[in-house]
Amino acid sequence: MSRISDVLDRIDAAEEEIRARYFDFLRIPSVSAQPNHNADCRTAAAWLVRELQAIGFTAEIRETKGHPAVVAHHPGPGGDARPLLYYGHYDVQPAEPFELWTSPPFEPTLAQGKNGPVTVARGAVDDKGQVMTWLAAMRAWHEVAGGPPAPVRVLVEGEEEIGSPSLDAFLEEHAAELRDARAVIVSDTNMWDPKTPAISARLRGMAYAQIDLYAASRDLHSGLYGGMALNPINLLCKILSDLTDSEGRIQLPGFYDQVPDVGGNLMTAWDALGFDEKRFLGDIGLSVPAGEKGRKPLERQWARPTCDVNGIWGGYTGPGSKTVIAAEAHAKVSFRLVGDQDPNAVLDALEAFVKERLPADARAEVQRFGAAPPVVVAEDSVEVLAARRALAAEYGKEAVLIGSGGSIPVVESFRRILGLDSVLMGFGLDDDQVHSPNEKFDWANLMHGARSHARLLAELAG
Amino acid sequence: MSRISDVLDRIDAAEEEIRARYFDFLRIPSVSAQPNHNADCRTAAAWLVRELQAIGFTAEIRETKGHPAVVAHHPGPGGDARPLLYYGHYDVQPAEPFELWTSPPFEPTLAQGKNGPVTVARGAVDDKGQVMTWLAAMRAWHEVAGGPPAPVRVLVEGEEEIGSPSLDAFLEEHAAELRDARAVIVSDTNMWDPKTPAISARLRGMAYAQIDLYAASRDLHSGLYGGMALNPINLLCKILSDLTDSEGRIQLPGFYDQVPDVGGNLMTAWDALGFDEKRFLGDIGLSVPAGEKGRKPLERQWARPTCDVNGIWGGYTGPGSKTVIAAEAHAKVSFRLVGDQDPNAVLDALEAFVKERLPADARAEVQRFGAAPPVVVAEDSVEVLAARRALAAEYGKEAVLIGSGGSIPVVESFRRILGLDSVLMGFGLDDDQVHSPNEKFDWANLMHGARSHARLLAELAG
Repeated sequence: MSRISDVLDRIDAAEEEIRARYFDFLRIPSVSAQPNHNADCRTAAAWLVRELQAIGFTAEIRETKGHPAVVAHHPGPGGDARPLLYYGHYDVQPAEPFELWTSPPFEPTLAQGKNGPVTVARGAVDDKGQVMTWLAAMRAWHEVAGGPPAPVRVLVEGEEEIGSPSLDAFLEEHAAELRDARAVIVSDTNMWDPKTPAISARLRGMAYAQIDLYAASRDLHSGLYGGMALNPINLLCKILSDLTDSEGRIQLPGFYDQVPDVGGNLMTAWDALGFDEKRFLGDIGLSVPAGEKGRKPLERQWARPTCDVNGIWGGYTGPGSKTVIAAEAHAKVSFRLVGDQDPNAVLDALEAFVKERLPADARAEVQRFGAAPPVVVAEDSVEVLAARRALAAEYGKEAVLIGSGGSIPVVESFRRILGLDSVLMGFGLDDDQVHSPNEKFDWANLMHGARSHARLLAELAG
Repeated sequence: MSRISDVLDRIDAAEEEIRARYFDFLRIPSVSAQPNHNADCRTAAAWLVRELQAIGFTAEIRETKGHPAVVAHHPGPGGDARPLLYYGHYDVQPAEPFELWTSPPFEPTLAQGKNGPVTVARGAVDDKGQVMTWLAAMRAWHEVAGGPPAPVRVLVEGEEEIGSPSLDAFLEEHAAELRDARAVIVSDTNMWDPKTPAISARLRGMAYAQIDLYAASRDLHSGLYGGMALNPINLLCKILSDLTDSEGRIQLPGFYDQVPDVGGNLMTAWDALGFDEKRFLGDIGLSVPAGEKGRKPLERQWARPTCDVNGIWGGYTGPGSKTVIAAEAHAKVSFRLVGDQDPNAVLDALEAFVKERLPADARAEVQRFGAAPPVVVAEDSVEVLAARRALAAEYGKEAVLIGSGGSIPVVESFRRILGLDSVLMGFGLDDDQVHSPNEKFDWANLMHGARSHARLLAELAG
């Protein structure tokens, strides 16, 4: 069909324009976790509104209790086909520690990667680069055919990296506007490898909390008070240590009750993928898997829960020595969840676990920063089958059905609140360093992603 | 004897001058732990040289491998009496966290305390205020009698708060100049209570280290890598938790082998002091003693070893959430030591303890920031008896013989390297908040301290 080949040609011809717009987007330091970037988050939302309006969408900023969302509509070619709902997020992770970046995180830079050119910037892939794949596809459809071949709704949020605290309320409030979609299209996941496209069929959930421990009313001299005064850092280490046993099993009561074992057929399929654990770990300077013992590598990544302390601080952390007993100590702790684990029940169990271990004079607060249930998506819906055809046509190779160790809480929210299934078609790679310094996105993946999205629209033309 | 009463009158009359000089000294932010204050440390040393020269001493800055020391001499009235050696330190603890100070830490402020006026500043008592007690006494002797009634040597160092790393080498190098003293006079300890003077007869030792753990070559996304990648913060918490058991006993092998039990007579004497544990803990917002179980309060403070994590940091510590597995984690850990415990052996044991617990792919460094053996001083030497008479005359009450939970490493160095015993006559109080925000020194204690030192010089007139 000539229309899709015109669209694909248009994408190829627009390579430099795509890069210019993508770099503009990346230059906005829309870090949702840090209040000093609140205005930047709004700037990123406004940038998207202009971008969508320029290609024929009605688009606007919608307020939430936190960072604003962007909602846009395009009627497509007319008729009464049900629309597709494209979801993404414009917010990015904090870029700290800045000193480990080889180029400034918000000045996108083209560098040479091991598979070809890459863009280095915070958000290069997660999720600004992935959002650019479908934005570029829609722009090409707009230029070639006056608009996408199916009705489209767009929802881009600004709080994914902090656990989407306002999104459920937003979806409930705007359910009437959004729930007529036939499916949600999400690009926030990875390919299997640089040559093999993938559809993610399962996502781990997440529960994230900050533990704040308080003891004495002020910092104390460890000579005068050592042996008498409760040390909240010592206590915090004991509590966090108790959370896992020597086999890496998490000790919250009942934690594994809703964790199913992976079935034999699925495990056989995963084994067939030929995951190269040595290379995966070698790329990050490690040689053996840590964590829970007695599980296969992909099982650990996709089908087993975890407990990681993501940050810890307390007392004197400057150069040299200071003989102080701190008045307080803090840690950020998160769990990846699978099966039927309930993130709020996990956070309840964590809070009880902490409070049971408090001696006299200690006080704890447990702040909750995110709770997303695990998700398994349909593998054979019309839309997933269309995505598999689009990817096979683009890559000359069947897409594989994979899991993802990460969490995209909104997928579960779309199902629960709007009754919508999602198609998770992403173009990241394991070595993209998302959430780390020097995050990158292979330039070829952005272009193939844009072409794949153009093909998917053609497959789902209404 | 009229000369000492003239000296005491002179001190009382000089109250405002003493305050002005003391405040000048406090304004110098001579924080030894922080390299950006290196020049301030030298400024504090130069201030002392001028102060000592102004009252008839030959005084000069002496270089060490770290911050400079000050050495000064006064021949006294002549004759061949053996000199007294006055020791102090001009360096202070870091003032962080600044936001908890009610007035800037290096702008000394007079405030109302519960026993009367107090000076609030970093170093108000530890040790600049205590140094001022004997400087004011010597100035009064200079003004009334042309100089102290005995030959005096002065040594003020600038590295006490970082474990005096250069002092042993300095004492060895200058042994010929210093070791003819009859005793060392040190004011860096506390009174028993605001009305009861004290001589400290035992000091705990200290061993201080920083543990640095390293795992992956960069920070990682906890979704992609959680369950596969070693988390060095989780590991650090396990190691630090293992250091003590649920009874508060320290788990380094052999740690208690050189810890003697306190004899019955001494314990009876300590019981007779009537230590008010409830008030001591209540002042810092606590109600029950933490740490090792089954020990009496003063025993815990003066005669039992401790293990405190003084600082910990790693991963994301900003606002909100970041789903990161850090590449490294750090902690500062110190032990207070008693009896015959060897601080270097303790640090060796700590290093072995950490390294035994490293799984594959983890790497640890253990940096040593201080090692001071415990000290017990003579209670009935000529000089201690003179100090007890001076304090009894000043306070109208016998001085009590106490222990100290803190460490003054130089006391052991003076004994080992110069063969000199020390007299630990200090004027601090438990609630002075040394090493904490809002450090203070009761004004009455500074004045009584100066008068007590003037009396001690009279008692030891040569």
